[in-house]
Amino acid sequence: MRPRHSVHRVRVLYQDTDQGRVVHHASYFRYLEAGRLELWREGDFSYDAFEKDTGLALPVVEAQVRYRASARFDELLEVETWVEKATQASIWVESIVRRGETVLIEARIRLACVTQATGQIRRIPVALLEACLEEDA
Amino acid sequence: MRPRHSVHRVRVLYQDTDQGRVVHHASYFRYLEAGRLELWREGDFSYDAFEKDTGLALPVVEAQVRYRASARFDELLEVETWVEKATQASIWVESIVRRGETVLIEARIRLACVTQATGQIRRIPVALLEACLEEDA
Amino acid sequence: MRPRHSVHRVRVLYQDTDQGRVVHHASYFRYLEAGRLELWREGDFSYDAFEKDTGLALPVVEAQVRYRASARFDELLEVETWVEKATQASIWVESIVRRGETVLIEARIRLACVTQATGQIRRIPVALLEACLEEDA
Amino acid sequence: MRPRHSVHRVRVLYQDTDQGRVVHHASYFRYLEAGRLELWREGDFSYDAFEKDTGLALPVVEAQVRYRASARFDELLEVETWVEKATQASIWVESIVRRGETVLIEARIRLACVTQATGQIRRIPVALLEACLEEDA
Repeated sequence: MRPRHSVHRVRVLYQDTDQGRVVHHASYFRYLEAGRLELWREGDFSYDAFEKDTGLALPVVEAQVRYRASARFDELLEVETWVEKATQASIWVESIVRRGETVLIEARIRLACVTQATGQIRRIPVALLEACLEEDA
Repeated sequence: MRPRHSVHRVRVLYQDTDQGRVVHHASYFRYLEAGRLELWREGDFSYDAFEKDTGLALPVVEAQVRYRASARFDELLEVETWVEKATQASIWVESIVRRGETVLIEARIRLACVTQATGQIRRIPVALLEACLEEDA
Repeated sequence: MRPRHSVHRVRVLYQDTDQGRVVHHASYFRYLEAGRLELWREGDFSYDAFEKDTGLALPVVEAQVRYRASARFDELLEVETWVEKATQASIWVESIVRRGETVLIEARIRLACVTQATGQIRRIPVALLEACLEEDA
Repeated sequence: MRPRHSVHRVRVLYQDTDQGRVVHHASYFRYLEAGRLELWREGDFSYDAFEKDTGLALPVVEAQVRYRASARFDELLEVETWVEKATQASIWVESIVRRGETVLIEARIRLACVTQATGQIRRIPVALLEACLEEDA
């Protein structure tokens, strides 16, 4: 088994840009969130159902982003997303946002698992970990 | 008694702008929301406590905005907010966003009152209406 | 000739929701913007090329939105968009955001045409108007 | 001389929250940006004038954020911001967002200096570095 890589396409909207005529650094977190949700979905893990069925949630507890090149209005970007590392306590999700061959940003987002009502830390669900793997070719 | 007018100042951030070098039309909804919350607060009505204590909420059910002039990065704007009309079913909150004497936008936002859990329509709370009035000079 | 109706699908992200567990009223402006850009694109009118080639822009000068029902996290919504009315000075773009058969919001957005550098009002470009029409069936 | 520490207060709006009833992780980037702009301003460095006068800009090229505790709607938070390290090529700005004594997030944001028109890397302006220092007590 190996990490499943998901590729999700996003279109840059006018409101994602700033007066520097490029995508504002905070706007990328939207693209990253969309990429993670599609990674889960491709592994048949519905985050929405997960929250409803278990009373748990997967908050972002750490973010590391390198901005390497700028995206611009109306560009169609690719967000490649995969689980880079997982422990009982957290998973690191990596993403690369690209325009064609050009890497725009590299991101590492760490998620923990908590009980929604109390915020108490829980183990990362096995079902999530399995959803992020696929058969070796 | 007459409508209380609240004046709240907001600073335009870089992320509020778009590549047209002006504040994006959607960014103003943030300023309007801040203005409403300060109107309530000045009338000693805490929206946060209201939601927690009553199980009710005041969702936006209608919005009408005229954009008359552009705001730019780093400008300090004034949001003047007051209740223009109220019925048992809803209240219309009017706002003007200004830079000095220049009117940038005029907005009318209609709020209803609902039960959070079910979305069922309720009467606008008298306490809210009272909070939006003040003594005549 | 009749107005071209464009249907664009958008997925509700976690960050589009608020603590009322529904999509925040301001988040819809993103969906509406995406819908307009796809309407232009389907008519072979690239807004990006338009801005670059002409030095003009199409700012939002008025917005009217009725919120009828709530959208929730992870739902796949449809944004139907068309030009409802056009004059030399402005065009009204109408949109309906739906989840299946349920209308969530109805929006009317008025756009004007201006010179980017000066903000001077210009006539709505004929190429845009033509892009928003299609042959009768 | 030592790093100037700026403390800026921000109010959590409803639209900053998500359905987990806490501030969404991406919303903090707004608070961080406001904190940086106030740090510059307190040192008599206007970022707006800087962009206009020099044709340069200070884009975010790296972000590292640790999320330690949750903020909630209507809370009044403090953003403490200072320059932690500076080289000719970039500066690291650190921020802590607090509610009273509770640290909510710790952030390190690296900025570079570029020519707006070309994106070419430039030296960090001395005027900016000086603005971020103050006399020892």
